[in-house]
Amino acid sequence: MAIQVSVCGPRDCTSEDGHNAREVGRLLAERGAVVICGGYTGVMAAVAAGARSAGGTVVGILSRPDREHAGPDLSIVIPTGAGEARNNIIVNSGDAVIVIGGSWGTLSELALAMRRGRTPVVQLGGWRLLDQHGQPVPGVRHATSPAQALQLTGLWPDQPL
Amino acid sequence: MAIQVSVCGPRDCTSEDGHNAREVGRLLAERGAVVICGGYTGVMAAVAAGARSAGGTVVGILSRPDREHAGPDLSIVIPTGAGEARNNIIVNSGDAVIVIGGSWGTLSELALAMRRGRTPVVQLGGWRLLDQHGQPVPGVRHATSPAQALQLTGLWPDQPL
Amino acid sequence: MAIQVSVCGPRDCTSEDGHNAREVGRLLAERGAVVICGGYTGVMAAVAAGARSAGGTVVGILSRPDREHAGPDLSIVIPTGAGEARNNIIVNSGDAVIVIGGSWGTLSELALAMRRGRTPVVQLGGWRLLDQHGQPVPGVRHATSPAQALQLTGLWPDQPL
Amino acid sequence: MAIQVSVCGPRDCTSEDGHNAREVGRLLAERGAVVICGGYTGVMAAVAAGARSAGGTVVGILSRPDREHAGPDLSIVIPTGAGEARNNIIVNSGDAVIVIGGSWGTLSELALAMRRGRTPVVQLGGWRLLDQHGQPVPGVRHATSPAQALQLTGLWPDQPL
Repeated sequence: MAIQVSVCGPRDCTSEDGHNAREVGRLLAERGAVVICGGYTGVMAAVAAGARSAGGTVVGILSRPDREHAGPDLSIVIPTGAGEARNNIIVNSGDAVIVIGGSWGTLSELALAMRRGRTPVVQLGGWRLLDQHGQPVPGVRHATSPAQALQLTGLWPDQPL
Repeated sequence: MAIQVSVCGPRDCTSEDGHNAREVGRLLAERGAVVICGGYTGVMAAVAAGARSAGGTVVGILSRPDREHAGPDLSIVIPTGAGEARNNIIVNSGDAVIVIGGSWGTLSELALAMRRGRTPVVQLGGWRLLDQHGQPVPGVRHATSPAQALQLTGLWPDQPL
Repeated sequence: MAIQVSVCGPRDCTSEDGHNAREVGRLLAERGAVVICGGYTGVMAAVAAGARSAGGTVVGILSRPDREHAGPDLSIVIPTGAGEARNNIIVNSGDAVIVIGGSWGTLSELALAMRRGRTPVVQLGGWRLLDQHGQPVPGVRHATSPAQALQLTGLWPDQPL
Repeated sequence: MAIQVSVCGPRDCTSEDGHNAREVGRLLAERGAVVICGGYTGVMAAVAAGARSAGGTVVGILSRPDREHAGPDLSIVIPTGAGEARNNIIVNSGDAVIVIGGSWGTLSELALAMRRGRTPVVQLGGWRLLDQHGQPVPGVRHATSPAQALQLTGLWPDQPL
């Protein structure tokens, strides 16, 4: 079975986030990883397009119970009908989770992935968290480029960037 | 995007159900359809093995939040963590639903697929339903062989069995 | 904590089913049980009205993420946003499950409750199941009146009907 | 139907968070609001105990499909079996959401409530969010006491604290 990497991010993303997502998708596909995403627009569409451009497989885990609004670059579509609870399914499905950009929905996915605690969680751009004492909340791995995001997943330790 | 067909059936299945499931999986893979199943044992394992034997793609929609007990013939694993609610996700994900054999879990999938009402539902073996007046409840398409099960989905109208 | 009884049935129900549901709701409230239901029309509305008429507490477990279309006789509303997966939550929430009338959605709840296997499942009216050999599938307790439905739950062994 | 307020917070909470949760529960019950919570330990148990001490009604929305580990102060128990997806159900069920203390699970509930965008979200203690530019992410209402937390929900505009 192939490595599966979940990539999360906003529907309405900045052009930088979109560029990063497309590049993350391309790099994941080149390494043979299956990309898991939310299947709609923004970061979700960009990572799917990037993976598709490199011949990769993309699974869209939709909130709706049907394929309406699903993006054009998905290989497989899972219309959960679970609403926002589909975010749990996305983070459960990755051997690592990469979060690109910031929004409330994206933050919920970051938090659920950290709550799960079983797989590396890498953040590229987006919001920052401070604890009660104003200190950064530890645990998330912060990348500054798509290539570093893949590196920080730890899934390809022997492969040069 | 490829055609997706969901195949449901009991964990503890008869040898006839297992044989039928394996054959349904093989025939679906030969036609290029992606098989969606529950990812564990019994009919789920048999349809996955059949599809895999013909080089097909099999997605396992698991009830657990991790890969424990997932079958060996899955191409992609979706550990929903949604418990039995994953049955909804399985029936939502198919362009048609094929139900093989009888159990309470399998019946719930048949009922959810009919409740959904958007895609053909084909039954091969398993339980029968009578309404309040003792008459068969209409709607489910009953097949007597794996090849007929595919035919009754209506997804390949021009292809000879 | 009070006894909780889940009552399931079709949105579009016969007048007999509606009458039975109302009476089941009334009897449950008289015994101090909390009624769990789907919160919309048909059997759901009838059981809520019956319980409310006797001063009972009714919890509506909605498929939608908001209160739209929720019935007027609910004491507490849980808008799950889980779609049809809310059926699992309804059957999980009862110390017993009473199913009134027949529909595909109702059948899915009956099947999920039997699949769960932890609590008594009582059926009043509705569809019948035959196995592969044409024999009735065992397990469901069949009642012919609202009072007998309560009796067959086994929750009030010492109380006269 | 009574006002429903969802209260979220960590299983492992500080004594200050526990004290605040108990007081929030008590104040909500005094105002006749139904308390919705996760039903287990920590903040969940404290808010339930506080509400119970004032004769209130507390609904526990459990992640498990059974009542195992459910707290002693719940009036009604909903064992969703939905895993962490139950967090969505909790935030959907409140006319307002009050978040006490910080943890990844709690943050996911805060984020889901803000993502939903239909009801006031009040935070008492816990983590802080900065956007890409190091500025506080707007939208959450920050309280410094249990009484102010209720006030900031906006649900009791005419009632003195």
